Amino acid sequence: MRRLRLVAAVCTSLSIAPAPAIAAGSYTTEKVAIQVETVASGLEHPWGIEVLPDGAYLVTERPGRLRLVKNGEVSKPVGGLPKIAVGGQGGLLDVALADDFEESGTVFFTYSEPGRGGTGTALAKAKLVRNGLEASLENVEVIFSMDRKTRRGQHFGSRIAIAEDGSIFFTIGDRGNGKRAQDMMDHAGAVLRINADGSIPKDNPYADGNSVLPELWSKGHRNPQGIDFDRKTNTLYAVEHGARGGDEINQPEPAKNYGWPVISYGRHYSGAKIGVGTKAAGYEQPLFYWDPSIAPGGMAVYRGEMFPEWDGDFLVTALKDRMLVRLDRNASGEIVGEERLLQGEYGRMRDVKAAPDGSLLVLTDEPDGVILRITRQ
Amino acid sequence: MRRLRLVAAVCTSLSIAPAPAIAAGSYTTEKVAIQVETVASGLEHPWGIEVLPDGAYLVTERPGRLRLVKNGEVSKPVGGLPKIAVGGQGGLLDVALADDFEESGTVFFTYSEPGRGGTGTALAKAKLVRNGLEASLENVEVIFSMDRKTRRGQHFGSRIAIAEDGSIFFTIGDRGNGKRAQDMMDHAGAVLRINADGSIPKDNPYADGNSVLPELWSKGHRNPQGIDFDRKTNTLYAVEHGARGGDEINQPEPAKNYGWPVISYGRHYSGAKIGVGTKAAGYEQPLFYWDPSIAPGGMAVYRGEMFPEWDGDFLVTALKDRMLVRLDRNASGEIVGEERLLQGEYGRMRDVKAAPDGSLLVLTDEPDGVILRITRQ
Repeated sequence: MRRLRLVAAVCTSLSIAPAPAIAAGSYTTEKVAIQVETVASGLEHPWGIEVLPDGAYLVTERPGRLRLVKNGEVSKPVGGLPKIAVGGQGGLLDVALADDFEESGTVFFTYSEPGRGGTGTALAKAKLVRNGLEASLENVEVIFSMDRKTRRGQHFGSRIAIAEDGSIFFTIGDRGNGKRAQDMMDHAGAVLRINADGSIPKDNPYADGNSVLPELWSKGHRNPQGIDFDRKTNTLYAVEHGARGGDEINQPEPAKNYGWPVISYGRHYSGAKIGVGTKAAGYEQPLFYWDPSIAPGGMAVYRGEMFPEWDGDFLVTALKDRMLVRLDRNASGEIVGEERLLQGEYGRMRDVKAAPDGSLLVLTDEPDGVILRITRQ
Repeated sequence: MRRLRLVAAVCTSLSIAPAPAIAAGSYTTEKVAIQVETVASGLEHPWGIEVLPDGAYLVTERPGRLRLVKNGEVSKPVGGLPKIAVGGQGGLLDVALADDFEESGTVFFTYSEPGRGGTGTALAKAKLVRNGLEASLENVEVIFSMDRKTRRGQHFGSRIAIAEDGSIFFTIGDRGNGKRAQDMMDHAGAVLRINADGSIPKDNPYADGNSVLPELWSKGHRNPQGIDFDRKTNTLYAVEHGARGGDEINQPEPAKNYGWPVISYGRHYSGAKIGVGTKAAGYEQPLFYWDPSIAPGGMAVYRGEMFPEWDGDFLVTALKDRMLVRLDRNASGEIVGEERLLQGEYGRMRDVKAAPDGSLLVLTDEPDGVILRITRQ
């Protein structure tokens, strides 16, 4: 892709409050010319984003704040969050709206929850009560809390994806201890699935919970920070941080094991081999992997109307290479090209989400993070 | 991949002539640990390489020289080359051995041939007569000469791949004029196929030559500089330099059109769109493309015994990103991962070839170019 021009304009505003500067850039890409606008700035390590019915954004900041953003204006922190253990890679993580959000105001969010022995990834549900940019959470209910907490500061995951049946998929990393990803009585290193009321879906692979934790959907994941449920094909996809050189896209299926740390395309930072190699019976292969690592922070399967050229493509944010990767997929779903977009232009990219109008929202993982909006030129 | 160490040693030699320094490096890669040795240096823009039955290398240098290399020693230029128009991207290009080389001494090579109106890519056959590192070409016969010559200095192609039936595939770029790639009476922008005696194979798609040049196999190629015939599957693959952001791997099939410049994943350097977009009826899609471009200088489908982990993978050299790309293919031939090897470690990489023992030979496209040999650690 190629940058054509960069223009800076100031948001017109009659209010006395300083209006955020809106920077915009135009880029040609392989299939379509795009426009990138910075629609909000001043967010501290924004992590997850949703678009509300009135077009406002609901954004998490990792240091434990939830904010609304509308017309470039960033709200005060939304009140009512539970206690969050901020530190390391932990804090407030992803947010997702229930399908019936317009009626119910229901939101789900993941965060690092303090508890006995350290922290664990938790999933909570709440009602967002809002008056313009003033908002708070009510009826906060923790619908999932990880059993085994640890003082380690890494690999919390976590993203949320809601299936058409209302069940909630979410991810947890291995908490810095690879063995946990293979322990079937441990929530770490997994994709999990529960119902919106915290109960176990009857068709979960281990719903009886006899010898495997009933929330588990798939195991052997190192640190999945991107997940999306493609409602067009009823397929779940996840992207995970591998060890050095082993970032993966997977298609998590029930009761399957994606191999970490028994098989991996990555290596320990010492250069030593991990596990038994890249393949072994009983462990699934990724759909795609990258070496060198790109450090994927989020993903989406694009199904929007704005970019029909990108239909079904994987969009993956990269922290390390500060870019948005588009993996082009053909009509059979095969990956046939890699396009690295906006590389180095805006910072470490954490999350990507298609808005209802098909535009893309990208969060930059920076102390002064921004929301980028990518539209068709 | 990760570099473990870099050691430098000096080739032990009793001769007074300066022995080339042999630099070696060890690297971990996703599937196997490799060793990289510089087995020869001091080559000026080496372009193509073959391994002779005694283990000596036959190497072209773009400025119009052919050399033998054995045990690190680089020969004087091999005598007997035809007149070569050196300039721009032109010069002596690829070299290939006939299957019966051991008996016949037959080699094929492509080069930019001077003629009326400028230069054209030509394919010649000759007998290599050799005494140690002294050698010359005899019975040089130009078995293909491009009709329409031009003074433009770019996009000569050209690589050679010999099929199991002895027919010779070779490539020619569009000579800097995209329209030529769509002209069926023009050899430019094409994969071509002839017999070793210069005749037209009966099963060429346009063998009668009535309205299409009979040497043509496929058209719509911009500048294919890598080609390989996979004898395991009887499939031809080619890699081509696209416009900005449109480098492609193709599977050239007879009478098919690969789209340049009607469709392309690249763009003009001005940023302007090329042709009608990335897809159109009647034009084939690539197997894979890269954006940003990597500037592919050569390719091989790996079928050697040394690295069974890489069986069937595409190995592609990159000039711009100075690396060797391995596109991992699964048993169905789908691309499931990208590994960027040796990035920035050795220089612009021009050609890659699997030696009979399965080791890989890589040429660096530098004024002081080298032959790298990649082996299993």
